[in-house]
Amino acid sequence: RYFHFCKLPGRVMGIRLLRFTSVVIIVLLLVAGALTALLPSIKDDKMPNLRREPKAPSQPALDAFTLIMQTYNRTDLLLKLLNHYQAIPHLHKVIVVWNNVGEKIPEDTWNSLGPHPVPVIFKVQTVNRMRNRLQNFPELETKAVLMMDDDTLVSAHDLAFAFSVWQQFPEQIVGFVPRKHISTPSGVYTYGSFELQSPGSGKGDQYSMVLIGAAFFHSGYLEDFQKQPEAVYALIDETQNCDDIAMNFLVAKNTGKSSGVFVKPVDIRNLEKDTNSGYSGMWHRAEHLLQRSYCVNKLVNIYDGMPLKYSNIMISQFGFPNYANHKNKM
Amino acid sequence: RYFHFCKLPGRVMGIRLLRFTSVVIIVLLLVAGALTALLPSIKDDKMPNLRREPKAPSQPALDAFTLIMQTYNRTDLLLKLLNHYQAIPHLHKVIVVWNNVGEKIPEDTWNSLGPHPVPVIFKVQTVNRMRNRLQNFPELETKAVLMMDDDTLVSAHDLAFAFSVWQQFPEQIVGFVPRKHISTPSGVYTYGSFELQSPGSGKGDQYSMVLIGAAFFHSGYLEDFQKQPEAVYALIDETQNCDDIAMNFLVAKNTGKSSGVFVKPVDIRNLEKDTNSGYSGMWHRAEHLLQRSYCVNKLVNIYDGMPLKYSNIMISQFGFPNYANHKNKM
Repeated sequence: RYFHFCKLPGRVMGIRLLRFTSVVIIVLLLVAGALTALLPSIKDDKMPNLRREPKAPSQPALDAFTLIMQTYNRTDLLLKLLNHYQAIPHLHKVIVVWNNVGEKIPEDTWNSLGPHPVPVIFKVQTVNRMRNRLQNFPELETKAVLMMDDDTLVSAHDLAFAFSVWQQFPEQIVGFVPRKHISTPSGVYTYGSFELQSPGSGKGDQYSMVLIGAAFFHSGYLEDFQKQPEAVYALIDETQNCDDIAMNFLVAKNTGKSSGVFVKPVDIRNLEKDTNSGYSGMWHRAEHLLQRSYCVNKLVNIYDGMPLKYSNIMISQFGFPNYANHKNKM
Repeated sequence: RYFHFCKLPGRVMGIRLLRFTSVVIIVLLLVAGALTALLPSIKDDKMPNLRREPKAPSQPALDAFTLIMQTYNRTDLLLKLLNHYQAIPHLHKVIVVWNNVGEKIPEDTWNSLGPHPVPVIFKVQTVNRMRNRLQNFPELETKAVLMMDDDTLVSAHDLAFAFSVWQQFPEQIVGFVPRKHISTPSGVYTYGSFELQSPGSGKGDQYSMVLIGAAFFHSGYLEDFQKQPEAVYALIDETQNCDDIAMNFLVAKNTGKSSGVFVKPVDIRNLEKDTNSGYSGMWHRAEHLLQRSYCVNKLVNIYDGMPLKYSNIMISQFGFPNYANHKNKM
C-alpha cells in the first residue's frame, strides 16, 4: 500500500532531514564564501627581496655594503681607488667588474700586496658592456650596494654618512650626483643638470635622478634589473650609456616616489686626469648628453610613461665638517 | 513487520543520508574555522589620527596647515608677524593663543584692517600657561600644525619648503631649531646645543629634539598630548618651560624614531629686541637652560626611560637660494 505507516515516517523523515541538511550546508557554504572574501589578498612585493627572506637576515647583510666597481682601461686608477675604498667602514666585500676583455686581472699584484681588509673579487667579463655592472652577482651578500665609477673618489666621511642615510631610505638610490629631466611643450624630454631651467613653479631647482656611479642602492634592484624589457638592454648596449637612467626609471616605477635621495658630498673628486692610460671616460664623447636625452625619451616609450618624480630634498651631515654648520642668527 | 520492504530503504537511506550530511557539515565547519583563523587581526594604530578617518580627507585637511601662535606681552610683535604669516602659501587658518589674561584681544584693530587672507581666531586664556598652546583646539581643521613663537620670523620660502618636507615625514616634528641631550657617566642628562660635546663616536654632531616654537607637526599630537601623565603638566606648569621637550618625548615614544627632522633655515630672525613692551622672553631667565636639563631628567623618570633618538640629517632646499648650491668639483 502507498500509505503504509512505515513508509511515511521514513519518507517524511527523509525529506525533512534532506531539507534541513540542505539548508545547513547552504548556510555553511555562504559563511565559508564570506570568510574567503575577507582573507587578505596576496599583494606583489614592492620592495625587491626585502620581505622575501624567510629567516632572520645575518649581521653583514644589514649593517654592511658591497662595493661594485666596473673598470675599463684605467687599472692605475682602479688600484689607487681600491686602496682607499677597501678601508671604508661597514664595507663587506668589493666586486670589481673587469671590462678589460682579454687582459689578465691584476690578481698577482693584488695578492702580493696583501693582506687586505676585505675580500676583493675580480669578475672577468667576456664582452665590454656598460651594463655588466648591473648583473645580479652571486657573491653579493649584503642588502646594500655601493656603486662607484672607477675614476671617482668620495671621502670615507661622505660614504659613511650616505650609507647611514640609505639605511633610512632603503628603497631609493642614495647618492652624490643629482640630475634631472625636463619636459617641453612638444612632449619631448631633455636630460641635464642645474644649467637647465627648473621644473615646477616653486622656488629653487629639482632633481629627478641620482646617478648610480656614486650611490648606494638596494641589491634587490640588481635582481629586478634582470627582468626588464629586452628593449632596455638593447638601448644600453646601443649607446654604451644610460644604464643609470634605466635604473632610475626602474626604481621610480617600483616605489612611486622620487628614485633618488641626494646627499651633498663634502669631498668628491674626479681622478680622470690622473690616469696614465690616456683614456678619459665616456662622458667626454661629443654625443654623450644628447644620447642621454635620447635615452630618456626611448625609456618613456618602452615603459609607456614617465615614472621619474622630482625632489628638492638635499641632505647634509649635521655638524660636519663644521661643528656648527647649522648655526643661524637666532 | 520489522523488515518491511518500504521501511528498509527509508531507514537505510535515512541513515546514509544522515551520515553523509554529518560528514559534509563537519567538513564545512572545519573549513570555516580555518578561514576564520586566516583573517587579518586588527592592529593598534600607531599614527595619531592619520588612519582613523573613515571618509576621504578633504582638500584643506591635507594640503594646508594651521598656524598656532601663543602670545604674551608682545602684541606689537604679534601684529607684525601676523601681517607676514597670514600670507604664507598653504596656510588655512591662524589660531592666536592669547595669554594676556584680562587684556582685550585686538579684535577691533584686526577687523578694521581687513579683509585678511585667512581667518584668524583669538583664543582667550584664563591662566597664563606655557602649555596653553598645546590644547586640542576644535577650530583645527588641518592635519598639519605650524607652531611659531611670537618673536620668531621665518621667511615664506623656508616655511613653504619645510611644509613640503613635513608632508614627507608627517610623523615627525619638522622644524628649524635643533637641540640635543647628552648623557653622562653618572646617568644624569644635560640639555643643550652644538656647544655641548657630540654624542656617539662618529663624525659631526647629532640632535635629538626639534623645538616646536618654529616647526610643523601632526595635529594628532595635540590630541595625544591631552593623554599624558599628570606629572608632565605639573612639570611644565612648575617651570613655565619644557612643553617642547615634553612634545619631543611624546613623538619619540610614539614613532620609535628621532622625534624631529631638522630643516636648515635660510632666513630666520628673532624679533625680541624690536618689541616696545620691554618684555624679552623666557629664555633670558638665568635658570632657563638648567631648567631644561632638569626637565629632561624629570621626563625620563615620568616616562621610565629615555625615548629620544639622535639624528644627523640636515635638510636644505636643492637649488635655493643659489641655483647651483649643490655644485661640486666633479
